[in-house]
Amino acid sequence: MSLIARKKRAVSAARAAGVDALLVTHLPDVRWLCGFTGSNAALILVGAPRSRAVLFTDGRYTSQAKAEAVGTQVVIAAKPAVTAACEWMVEAGVRRCGFDGTHTTIASLDAMRRAVPAKVRRGLFVAVEPLVARLREIKDAEELKRTRAAAALGCALFDRMLGYMQAGMTETAVAAELEHAARLAGAEAMSFETIVASGQRSALPHGRATTAKLPKRGFVTLDFGVVLDGYCSDMTRTVHMGRGSIEERNAYDAVLEAQETAVAAVRAGVTAGDVDEAARSVLRRAGLDKWFTHSTGHGVGLEIHEGPRLAAKQTQKLEAGMVVTIEPGIYLPGKFGLRIEDMVVVTAKGGEILTPSTKAWVEL
Amino acid sequence: MSLIARKKRAVSAARAAGVDALLVTHLPDVRWLCGFTGSNAALILVGAPRSRAVLFTDGRYTSQAKAEAVGTQVVIAAKPAVTAACEWMVEAGVRRCGFDGTHTTIASLDAMRRAVPAKVRRGLFVAVEPLVARLREIKDAEELKRTRAAAALGCALFDRMLGYMQAGMTETAVAAELEHAARLAGAEAMSFETIVASGQRSALPHGRATTAKLPKRGFVTLDFGVVLDGYCSDMTRTVHMGRGSIEERNAYDAVLEAQETAVAAVRAGVTAGDVDEAARSVLRRAGLDKWFTHSTGHGVGLEIHEGPRLAAKQTQKLEAGMVVTIEPGIYLPGKFGLRIEDMVVVTAKGGEILTPSTKAWVEL
Repeated sequence: MSLIARKKRAVSAARAAGVDALLVTHLPDVRWLCGFTGSNAALILVGAPRSRAVLFTDGRYTSQAKAEAVGTQVVIAAKPAVTAACEWMVEAGVRRCGFDGTHTTIASLDAMRRAVPAKVRRGLFVAVEPLVARLREIKDAEELKRTRAAAALGCALFDRMLGYMQAGMTETAVAAELEHAARLAGAEAMSFETIVASGQRSALPHGRATTAKLPKRGFVTLDFGVVLDGYCSDMTRTVHMGRGSIEERNAYDAVLEAQETAVAAVRAGVTAGDVDEAARSVLRRAGLDKWFTHSTGHGVGLEIHEGPRLAAKQTQKLEAGMVVTIEPGIYLPGKFGLRIEDMVVVTAKGGEILTPSTKAWVEL
Repeated sequence: MSLIARKKRAVSAARAAGVDALLVTHLPDVRWLCGFTGSNAALILVGAPRSRAVLFTDGRYTSQAKAEAVGTQVVIAAKPAVTAACEWMVEAGVRRCGFDGTHTTIASLDAMRRAVPAKVRRGLFVAVEPLVARLREIKDAEELKRTRAAAALGCALFDRMLGYMQAGMTETAVAAELEHAARLAGAEAMSFETIVASGQRSALPHGRATTAKLPKRGFVTLDFGVVLDGYCSDMTRTVHMGRGSIEERNAYDAVLEAQETAVAAVRAGVTAGDVDEAARSVLRRAGLDKWFTHSTGHGVGLEIHEGPRLAAKQTQKLEAGMVVTIEPGIYLPGKFGLRIEDMVVVTAKGGEILTPSTKAWVEL
């Protein structure tokens, strides 16, 4: 889908929401709509009487904005971008401008109101649903291509780490090696702070890498992602250093079964809650569901956490082109924890795994 | 300053702002006040009738929250943390609860309102200035120690890169080496996406590392920071590959003079605008001020961009214990650009540089 088509879809969504323009300030939304990747931006999309797209940013981005935001008018503003955008919209005759209430702060709305004359202020700004975030949930061919590439890089990095990790190495050293290899392979950044949680620390669902050492015996959970061409990957594998106990192997088998069952439940038309329940019910049967303390997954794209949310009772239906994580895990405080996570593309026929690295029990 | 003292100061600030409790959801504020570093948190501070601090988070952080938030009651909530916090505050008899309007979205405020009974809703939630952010501008001894350590690591990394960079190497390879060394030295993360802007790309103030190659002749700007024990560093140096032209050397000398003049202007009691003007006036005399397209600096701490803002006409006075960047630069589109940046602690006597790496003209 071209940037023009994306802007058109956003304008249509805005009209359906009862507004004649959309003020977009959330940076991933701005990037998706017009291509600009700078850190300061306000984008206005106007539907009528004629379609217009104007990007406001500052002098640091003069060259970059023009190079990136092809097909969008660029205004380099001395004032804050949002203020300049609001002044412009009054000039342009916008009557009702939608903004995303989930990404606009009370202070920003105040600034928006102050930027326009009192006589037009009333009813001008209308909080609408996150329309652009909703459009972004369905990935187009170009986005899927980039997402596949990011996920494939993630897999290559995990496979590399299998040959690198050794007992006695610090978690930080593991993260350093992984991130260095990611960079050399072209990643712009990691998509979140790398999790290397070893031994008892594996019971921390968000155990960022520390100076703790990989144990001679115990789990190591690696949860990491790269950003490649703007798109995030996200995957988790848990391996065992040394010989695992019966309890550890049983726990691993249960989580793996939960994960595979949830992946098998993915298909356009099923609800996000159904997929969550598919994972949860397996762990319930194993008597482990009380340790599964988070949701099953989330969308991934320009941001590491996007919609849909795969959690209990979520009624949103999965749609073809969504990319979601499936990541059940269990965490036994003071003992151990483990999680297994894939990225999956939703299709009419089912879920296609983008992160095919082995999920078999691995002892290093 | 202990966490207890920080919470007391926040409660005092809240009282001075006319509220009897403070709802804190901005994660760096939460961390500063109670020590918790998780990704989902709502902290309530109540001043009267007795002081209370309660942290709401979810099941992923059961162990971590208790370990980190010593001296703060922890509630693991099944509901969204903010919802649970608002329900609790009604039970606790809070009448007027302040929240930071610069970090609270329209949607969050809606959720806060929906979480409380209609009969107490009116007047319960009051948008206040960013009180905690304001307190955080002045660093205590422990924070300065960590900040010094982060800045010192930044310098060590820059010095290492001086011996590493060579013409023909990609910008990404330079970033990868820098970030790898940072990780091995204990950095949790980089404090922002590493900037390696070489040749004509040095004219991009925010030129993130790409696959462009370091030129045989031309500038390379390195702007990077590490996060160490939660605290950010931030520094920029611009070096020259090969022999520089007269124009390049003159430009470098002008930016260096502007930077040193601004550092010399730092002292408790001067305004942020005065420091900005000190840099800008040097570049004005050199006829280069039109290419200095950003502000002179910003505070640094748990976040890479904090107050105060060192920009034209800012009337805020610098105070002892603030840590700010001084980073003038000039950017000649299609030609070259350069920037020089130090971190500086504000004291009663002047500014103390935390990033003493050489600022002399360097040819590699």
